[in-house]
Amino acid sequence: MTQTAEFPTPRLGEPYLLTPGPLTTAYEVKEAMLRDWGSWDGDFRAMTATICRRLLAMAGDEAGDYVCVPMQGSGSFSVEAMLGTLVPRDGKVLVLANGAYGLRAAETLRYLGRDHVVIDKGDYLPPRGDEVAAALAADPGITHVVAIHCETSSGILNPVEEIAEVVEAHGRKLLIDSMSAFGAVDLDVRRIRFEALVSSANKCIEGVPGFGFVIARRTEIAAAKGNSHSLALDLHAQWVYLEKTGQWRYTPPTHVVAAFLKALDLHEAEGGVAGRGARYRANRDTLVAGMRALGFETLLDDRWLSPIIVTFFNPADPAFDFARFYDLMKEDGFIIYPGKLTVVDSFRLGCIGRMDAAVMRRAADAAGRALTRMGVASAAPPALALEERARLAA
Amino acid sequence: MTQTAEFPTPRLGEPYLLTPGPLTTAYEVKEAMLRDWGSWDGDFRAMTATICRRLLAMAGDEAGDYVCVPMQGSGSFSVEAMLGTLVPRDGKVLVLANGAYGLRAAETLRYLGRDHVVIDKGDYLPPRGDEVAAALAADPGITHVVAIHCETSSGILNPVEEIAEVVEAHGRKLLIDSMSAFGAVDLDVRRIRFEALVSSANKCIEGVPGFGFVIARRTEIAAAKGNSHSLALDLHAQWVYLEKTGQWRYTPPTHVVAAFLKALDLHEAEGGVAGRGARYRANRDTLVAGMRALGFETLLDDRWLSPIIVTFFNPADPAFDFARFYDLMKEDGFIIYPGKLTVVDSFRLGCIGRMDAAVMRRAADAAGRALTRMGVASAAPPALALEERARLAA
Repeated sequence: MTQTAEFPTPRLGEPYLLTPGPLTTAYEVKEAMLRDWGSWDGDFRAMTATICRRLLAMAGDEAGDYVCVPMQGSGSFSVEAMLGTLVPRDGKVLVLANGAYGLRAAETLRYLGRDHVVIDKGDYLPPRGDEVAAALAADPGITHVVAIHCETSSGILNPVEEIAEVVEAHGRKLLIDSMSAFGAVDLDVRRIRFEALVSSANKCIEGVPGFGFVIARRTEIAAAKGNSHSLALDLHAQWVYLEKTGQWRYTPPTHVVAAFLKALDLHEAEGGVAGRGARYRANRDTLVAGMRALGFETLLDDRWLSPIIVTFFNPADPAFDFARFYDLMKEDGFIIYPGKLTVVDSFRLGCIGRMDAAVMRRAADAAGRALTRMGVASAAPPALALEERARLAA
Repeated sequence: MTQTAEFPTPRLGEPYLLTPGPLTTAYEVKEAMLRDWGSWDGDFRAMTATICRRLLAMAGDEAGDYVCVPMQGSGSFSVEAMLGTLVPRDGKVLVLANGAYGLRAAETLRYLGRDHVVIDKGDYLPPRGDEVAAALAADPGITHVVAIHCETSSGILNPVEEIAEVVEAHGRKLLIDSMSAFGAVDLDVRRIRFEALVSSANKCIEGVPGFGFVIARRTEIAAAKGNSHSLALDLHAQWVYLEKTGQWRYTPPTHVVAAFLKALDLHEAEGGVAGRGARYRANRDTLVAGMRALGFETLLDDRWLSPIIVTFFNPADPAFDFARFYDLMKEDGFIIYPGKLTVVDSFRLGCIGRMDAAVMRRAADAAGRALTRMGVASAAPPALALEERARLAA
């Protein structure tokens, strides 16, 4: 199989982005940005309509119960639009946090003045169904639960199915931040009950950054008029205008939108969510095997490893220096990502973007060369790191 | 002078966008989007720093009194970020409105719960210094004034110098929405006193849409901590993070940012604000002359015509139909823009983007052909339109 022919190096001298976004995209996706579009024009309106229709299909919305609303800005803008619009001013939110994105959702609610409580599991421990059930049983005032699908701080794939069952059983509403998972990890309204999910153009669908989107139950968004704290981020107003005119309310990032349509074509050609997910899982497996062969250890046990991004502990060897490791990896054609753990030092490698297993093998090889050049004898982490991991297994 | 060689048709079959943004951009600007950037990486941070430095120079900030803060989203996102961050929660704003963008600023303040009053001059009459002075004298509680530099609803270039003098004389703070003027119309801190201006990548600097920026007095933004109603649109937090890390707080539209840097190169090569403004004025003059030769009339008197966009009255002839006119112009390679006047029907033609006077002549020729094909004998507007215009002259 000529995978490297299908997934060529982006351009001579351009590094692969082993990050959770911005990520490496296909050349054809970027080529779609080589023309200008009038956002008022029918041709562009048709592009927006196609994108929304295909995203709804990706979420399994056969019944037409959901709507798709794109929103300008980074993914965090869409998260804020979802929270500010779908949570009423007198609502109360339970945020399930195990990393930066959960905590950011809570911080957003604080800005918005929406009542909320947080289950904070620390750096990476997953929020489980039983503790969510206990929290909901204890506080009937909680109206909404926010869950992070893949928490890219650690790379953990949180158990959203288990959480969704509990939230539904307690008659509350679930909002899922599936920023870095939607499109590669199954999240289907026919199997998982949720009121809304939010994701972005520049994650598993492999577009370029510039907008996000919310897929929301039609009855929820229709009831959300007047909730928003922000004109620009008023998801209800954006939806009403889109329904009425076929246009985005304010100037859309037209080139980014055109690129996303091409990215959707490539996603479909790869076999949709199943095909995309299979490639990312193969990327992860190849990467993890290659890194483990060098002595690196993953933060997470295999059962919690997402196919999106993997956290590795820094080697204990004092010759290891992250800044130097970053530069050496970059010289070899790979941009890597720092870690976000508070207890032990770590770094992260993304598995998403226009890359295949052959690229991941080269990334692991590059890591090996970097260790040699730094004079690191062993990539084994400190004992403290392994104790951390043991906490998760317990 | 081979202007058409310098400004070739974007691509075969691609229409010119005679709209106030998205607009027609140079091919080189779009080509700059053909690679992926890691937003965490030093190469990208350097691009952001260069962009901010050059925008500050464009505003004439030799003294280093101002800072430039980019913000993801459309221009309206940056306007909201400016208002929500720089107007304290107990501030009071005087909004000078003569069209959709002034009214949108007021609507934004309503969402934000910031006290405000509006001088609404209707469809196009300019707010003048004496009436601003009277409003400020009458209400000492007003802390800030918001002025629209070029109100693209009508295409009027509002008298910001006159307004700035009055606001300064009354010891209040001026925030300027220079969305569609900055980069082509002089707005220099050495000549006009203002606390902040807001503009976007996709207007006179001829980048592609996806972010805006605020140029704010350093002392103002430094004092603005805790004002913002929104996490995503917190301009103070965005600035602090940028100062500390060189990075945008959340994922930037990396490709759009790379395109903007190339657009700044072209802007400089054209002679900066003076050169860009001269081309746009020539575009406008050529367009207006060509359209007037067909019998069309402009809404505005020459003294108020901006070099950005021009409003023309629809012909009175019953054979004229805007939807058909739009389609015929599009067939001929030009996307035009509907009018926004409430009293009489109109349409608008933009003068900005990668186009020169030769293109504008062809646009006027295309309008002539469209009239012929519709069977419109005269492009003269109804009497009511001319009465409207007489009100402005009075």
